[in-house]
Amino acid sequence: MNAAIRAAVHQAADRRLTTIGIKHGFQGLLERDFLELDLCSVDGIIQHGGTVLRSARCDCFLTAAGQDLGAANLKSEGIEGLVVIGGEGTFRGGAALAKRGIKVVGVPGTIDNDIPCTDTSIGFDTALNTVVDAMNKIRDTASAHERTFVVEVMGRASGHIALMAGLAGGAESILVPEIPFDLVDICERLQCGAERGKTHSIILVAEGVASAYTLGEEVKKRTGFDTRVIVLGHLQRGGAPSAFDRILASRMGARAVEALLAGERAGAATFAAGRIEMVPFSRLFAASKRLDQSLYDLAAVLAL
Amino acid sequence: MNAAIRAAVHQAADRRLTTIGIKHGFQGLLERDFLELDLCSVDGIIQHGGTVLRSARCDCFLTAAGQDLGAANLKSEGIEGLVVIGGEGTFRGGAALAKRGIKVVGVPGTIDNDIPCTDTSIGFDTALNTVVDAMNKIRDTASAHERTFVVEVMGRASGHIALMAGLAGGAESILVPEIPFDLVDICERLQCGAERGKTHSIILVAEGVASAYTLGEEVKKRTGFDTRVIVLGHLQRGGAPSAFDRILASRMGARAVEALLAGERAGAATFAAGRIEMVPFSRLFAASKRLDQSLYDLAAVLAL
Amino acid sequence: MNAAIRAAVHQAADRRLTTIGIKHGFQGLLERDFLELDLCSVDGIIQHGGTVLRSARCDCFLTAAGQDLGAANLKSEGIEGLVVIGGEGTFRGGAALAKRGIKVVGVPGTIDNDIPCTDTSIGFDTALNTVVDAMNKIRDTASAHERTFVVEVMGRASGHIALMAGLAGGAESILVPEIPFDLVDICERLQCGAERGKTHSIILVAEGVASAYTLGEEVKKRTGFDTRVIVLGHLQRGGAPSAFDRILASRMGARAVEALLAGERAGAATFAAGRIEMVPFSRLFAASKRLDQSLYDLAAVLAL
Amino acid sequence: MNAAIRAAVHQAADRRLTTIGIKHGFQGLLERDFLELDLCSVDGIIQHGGTVLRSARCDCFLTAAGQDLGAANLKSEGIEGLVVIGGEGTFRGGAALAKRGIKVVGVPGTIDNDIPCTDTSIGFDTALNTVVDAMNKIRDTASAHERTFVVEVMGRASGHIALMAGLAGGAESILVPEIPFDLVDICERLQCGAERGKTHSIILVAEGVASAYTLGEEVKKRTGFDTRVIVLGHLQRGGAPSAFDRILASRMGARAVEALLAGERAGAATFAAGRIEMVPFSRLFAASKRLDQSLYDLAAVLAL
Repeated sequence: MNAAIRAAVHQAADRRLTTIGIKHGFQGLLERDFLELDLCSVDGIIQHGGTVLRSARCDCFLTAAGQDLGAANLKSEGIEGLVVIGGEGTFRGGAALAKRGIKVVGVPGTIDNDIPCTDTSIGFDTALNTVVDAMNKIRDTASAHERTFVVEVMGRASGHIALMAGLAGGAESILVPEIPFDLVDICERLQCGAERGKTHSIILVAEGVASAYTLGEEVKKRTGFDTRVIVLGHLQRGGAPSAFDRILASRMGARAVEALLAGERAGAATFAAGRIEMVPFSRLFAASKRLDQSLYDLAAVLAL
Repeated sequence: MNAAIRAAVHQAADRRLTTIGIKHGFQGLLERDFLELDLCSVDGIIQHGGTVLRSARCDCFLTAAGQDLGAANLKSEGIEGLVVIGGEGTFRGGAALAKRGIKVVGVPGTIDNDIPCTDTSIGFDTALNTVVDAMNKIRDTASAHERTFVVEVMGRASGHIALMAGLAGGAESILVPEIPFDLVDICERLQCGAERGKTHSIILVAEGVASAYTLGEEVKKRTGFDTRVIVLGHLQRGGAPSAFDRILASRMGARAVEALLAGERAGAATFAAGRIEMVPFSRLFAASKRLDQSLYDLAAVLAL
Repeated sequence: MNAAIRAAVHQAADRRLTTIGIKHGFQGLLERDFLELDLCSVDGIIQHGGTVLRSARCDCFLTAAGQDLGAANLKSEGIEGLVVIGGEGTFRGGAALAKRGIKVVGVPGTIDNDIPCTDTSIGFDTALNTVVDAMNKIRDTASAHERTFVVEVMGRASGHIALMAGLAGGAESILVPEIPFDLVDICERLQCGAERGKTHSIILVAEGVASAYTLGEEVKKRTGFDTRVIVLGHLQRGGAPSAFDRILASRMGARAVEALLAGERAGAATFAAGRIEMVPFSRLFAASKRLDQSLYDLAAVLAL
Repeated sequence: MNAAIRAAVHQAADRRLTTIGIKHGFQGLLERDFLELDLCSVDGIIQHGGTVLRSARCDCFLTAAGQDLGAANLKSEGIEGLVVIGGEGTFRGGAALAKRGIKVVGVPGTIDNDIPCTDTSIGFDTALNTVVDAMNKIRDTASAHERTFVVEVMGRASGHIALMAGLAGGAESILVPEIPFDLVDICERLQCGAERGKTHSIILVAEGVASAYTLGEEVKKRTGFDTRVIVLGHLQRGGAPSAFDRILASRMGARAVEALLAGERAGAATFAAGRIEMVPFSRLFAASKRLDQSLYDLAAVLAL
């Protein structure tokens, strides 16, 4: 997300605007945790993961009173336009401020890639590379034993990481919350693969589907294969951002400032069909994000 | 490219087709260097760089006689459709075979990303990540001295790597073959940055523009800054493929087989506007690939 | 381990000896799964994790009958000296063959680093780097919340990975099987750190100590901090070997062949005090490997 | 080096001492660029390359007047002991202060690993891993052509990086300043390798030996092989520090503080025979660092 912050600050500076950063997200907005961001403040932040402004959950901002205070703080500080980076929750917070007269543009930043109307969000590509790198390391240790690895990745309600990482890493099975799975079928495939000479298989499971441990136990019981569990957890949130994510974030951050200058009142800078497009929050909230069934089918073919 | 080979083999197996691999590209075609590729042959190749089939230049195939022999070899082997992976030269070879009655589909694979009609080619994202990783390492050593690094990247005739890596890595200047540069302006920026407190700057130069050494000498003479040169060369061709490249390659490889089955005679599986699309070779050869001027301008704003 | 195999083959070739590889370890020995290894067979294997010869468990070789057969197979194949790579179990197998008249040299290869008489084993440095890289990624996502990460690493009976990775990665607490831990003390430290402004803490736990999930629950109950679990599992066994491991493996592999030529009958090539030294199996089996208490104490000081 | 700073600060805090950091090395000492370092200031720095205190060359400190001022500044600030991190030049600066009554301990930190009396210096292992990673990437692109890569690494006067990285990465030839090389012999080996089926070779050359470009031209002229050049330059100075380097730095930094408390007046914390040992500056300056001939010979055997 640092790349998006940096791009917004540079784009604003190019237009002779002053940029104020708000630390700790909406919580910092309520506490007036402001700091001026000039070009120097964003030098050399592009290669770091996380965000220099830190993030925080803020239950207080979920109330109308909190949102009133937030809008008032922005106005009294003389802030004319707000860029918020985050997921749909963050955008809803932004929309609440927009209703109170603040111009708000959202930038999609969530590794889960569960925001509608955008093909991808900042952080998703980096997370995929982390999962795929882990899968490579696991494959390196292939032994003569038939062994099955169950790898649990992020995704409580969405299987985008599991599906795309599974496609990229060649997972033998991919379990996502959106599509029911059949354990009998999974175990049959494992046995098929073993008969064909595969020394190991990887089952990639989104955390929202099942515990990797429970799943591993069940697979072991049914196939007799030695089963091992890896839980990647927050590992997936960190790491130096990938080139793709930095370019995406830079483009979105710069576009957000452009959009504010062009009068955007409540919308998000999305990436669709290879371009950065503005989408009104209202349309975004009404849409839903689906897994690409054709990619799921492709993953099944590749897992033969 | 292994991911594309693997996907083509799996897609073909799913349709009960037999796949024959041709080693060493067109040279192997002339020498009938065929080997059957079944599912087992492509197990565990997805995480490796390069290609299991190896590649080779083949001057002989540039002649009509060579192309006649190639087509004859394919026919006598009973090969009904051919998937070629590579750049525009490879596609032209494929088109020559297509004229001789072979169904051919091209898959764009070149780190230079200089193939028209496709937003990106297999290998480009991986190369970008390698360059950006190098830029991170260079920035780590920032010292109190004003120091300028000149980093030479691939691109004899095209500046896609330089531009996109420069955008992602936050290069202070980006020199590409497509756009003339002004050394006076570059040196002024360096001095500006130094005055603002930047302890170091990176000039990213595509190899087709100028030698990094010559450029470094010139910058040193004009600014007095300590200037160091890094030449990444073939480093950019290797490395474990990124998640993005593997997914792209898997989709393109599978689509190439689909297209052959659907009767495609001479076209390429491209990636445009977020989708895999078939483009006839004739249209692709007539088109030209341009740098995205808006991204070049964005890079200039980010380099402020 | 590939680097050790490559070094042994090269060293042998330099002395005009023929090298035979045994696939799948002792199981392959019983099944006469031999293949000649010349210089070509080990070209380009040094950068890959795992081993080209594959490994396998072999219960049958634990019996005297199995060991008799193994020795007979070696003799009938004309193999005059054997290099075994692995942990103490592998060395005991080697010692059993030595008793049957085979010259055997062991090369320590286990990521657990639990082999006595050697400061480090092949694979340990690579595993450490994998764990430390994971810790970096976890730290990147530090948020304004007090958050505690419990990271489970390998080590059923030994805490070498946990201790050294904890030292390198700056873990706030390190739990190893060799030293009892006090949960009250751990929770107090976490609270101390939080009061000082630490936004997150990492508890590194060897798998032999406790389940990361149980531990995480307990910590959460006592401190109220948001606790997240990462289980690295077999991730730690893979990855491109580090420079240190390759140099160590190359030295040990070459030395093993030298030692056989010099008449060694039953010993291991160890790394102690910065040098490769031969240690008789008998001495190695009688010794025990301890955690370095001074490093454990240093880790505690660094975790202040 | 951050790990060494962090360890020194923690060790001092554990002994209830106050730590003052001096920014920009000796230059900062002359300019009284002091800042107090408490535990918080060194939280989360361990995973970053470079140094939080920045470094700088300081010609002024080479004079007696400069050294007098430096000692006076330390005394007036109430600093009772000084830890300096760097190469032999830094240690000589430290020794000059020691003569003026300041207790000084040196910590060896240079990627060249050219400091006598210590087996390795902080940063060397990280640099090796960077070079070896580059070599892996180069090997990935092996083609059917005979191709030779000339990789220039750091080392104006010392070949430690070239030798050890060449050993780890399996270089076909290693050129170091300490040992004369024979181009005829190198070209013969290349041709031998090609005849045996090697598709590519890597010549690793320390920058002090020859320009990679000149060498590449010469090799091409003699062998006819396609020759490509990579110049790694400052890439080798950056990157997240390896586990080995962090542990080494932590141990050395803590030991430096221990040594000052124990009354050390002018010595360095070295790593020899697997242990951290104090060596008086006088002995260190009188010694010289040699390449390990046995490792050079081993590299030649492995390059067969």
